[in-house]
Amino acid sequence: MESNATFSNLEDIFSRTRTALNEFKDIITPVIEEAKDDHERLYWHHIYEEEDHRFDRLEHLLPALQSINADDSTITTEDSEFVHLLQDISLEKFGLHNFLEHLDLSLYTFKDTELEKPIQSLRDMTSEDYQLTKQLLDQLNEEFKGGLSFKTSVPTDEKEDIDERLKLDTYAPTDTHSGSSGQSTPQHSKKRLTVGSLKY
Amino acid sequence: MESNATFSNLEDIFSRTRTALNEFKDIITPVIEEAKDDHERLYWHHIYEEEDHRFDRLEHLLPALQSINADDSTITTEDSEFVHLLQDISLEKFGLHNFLEHLDLSLYTFKDTELEKPIQSLRDMTSEDYQLTKQLLDQLNEEFKGGLSFKTSVPTDEKEDIDERLKLDTYAPTDTHSGSSGQSTPQHSKKRLTVGSLKY
Repeated sequence: MESNATFSNLEDIFSRTRTALNEFKDIITPVIEEAKDDHERLYWHHIYEEEDHRFDRLEHLLPALQSINADDSTITTEDSEFVHLLQDISLEKFGLHNFLEHLDLSLYTFKDTELEKPIQSLRDMTSEDYQLTKQLLDQLNEEFKGGLSFKTSVPTDEKEDIDERLKLDTYAPTDTHSGSSGQSTPQHSKKRLTVGSLKY
Repeated sequence: MESNATFSNLEDIFSRTRTALNEFKDIITPVIEEAKDDHERLYWHHIYEEEDHRFDRLEHLLPALQSINADDSTITTEDSEFVHLLQDISLEKFGLHNFLEHLDLSLYTFKDTELEKPIQSLRDMTSEDYQLTKQLLDQLNEEFKGGLSFKTSVPTDEKEDIDERLKLDTYAPTDTHSGSSGQSTPQHSKKRLTVGSLKY
């Protein structure tokens, strides 16, 4: 069925981002260990912990995706296990958006350092995977005739009933296949970064 | 049954934190709107968005808790819907820990301002509710003879297989009923904050 390819793509994305988040955790580990004060330590610890938690969720989700991809039987929204799997996938759609913001926050701190290039490359990959994940969830929703509930998958940036001043242009919804082509990095967003205005 | 009181307590906690996170969102909304540059805007937007997402999850979880509390029938781990409810509760246990860190990050920024007192009071309430939630999940695990899976509920601070240098004393596990009595605020944690070292 159509959705088998979709789930296979989702498995690839979540497997890829599990590797990417571990690379990112390794990058910021010495930053936490060498933090100059409690505030800096808490800032990076907090980001590390959220990605560490995302890793635990992906470790839980990926085997479920793998078993769906290994099983050719028909999938229906009558199956409550399947509905919960879709809800878990929608949660990880938000997780990809959140990772994108962690990487963008890090780019402000590590701009013009040896860490900028590896973080930028994780950022570009994550931006594309996030856009692809949105497309794949849209395809699933079409296949299941809108019968799916993704209540917990929409970032503030993409909500319609939110004060525009609380959203960021960088993360505005895009219809392009590649997120990076449709999005700007913080360095190129409309409002300019005040260089040197921040410790991190 | 024993667990009915537990679920009623959990409903109270998650209803209380839903109100608290909205208060916090209102506190930081003008901070986002009046941010002096993109980095400061992204920093507060990112925290706002995570709490906004937590609100969406709680809006999904609370009706399920309410229906369990309204139903006197026996609950068993054979019921997959119940197992998923417990997994959602364990996710919100982590959500409470994450909120605690958002409030502590904010206390660094708003120390000695008119915002310190309301944020500190949300922080103290959240710390106690987080400790209580851990106790309630332990009780459920005992009642169901350890048959529950809370894979995605443990913060880095409470994992045993993690480099100690990545954990914060402030969030070290405590057996006290009240989290605040067993925990210190950042201002009182072992390592001192370097006053004035941070913009936010």
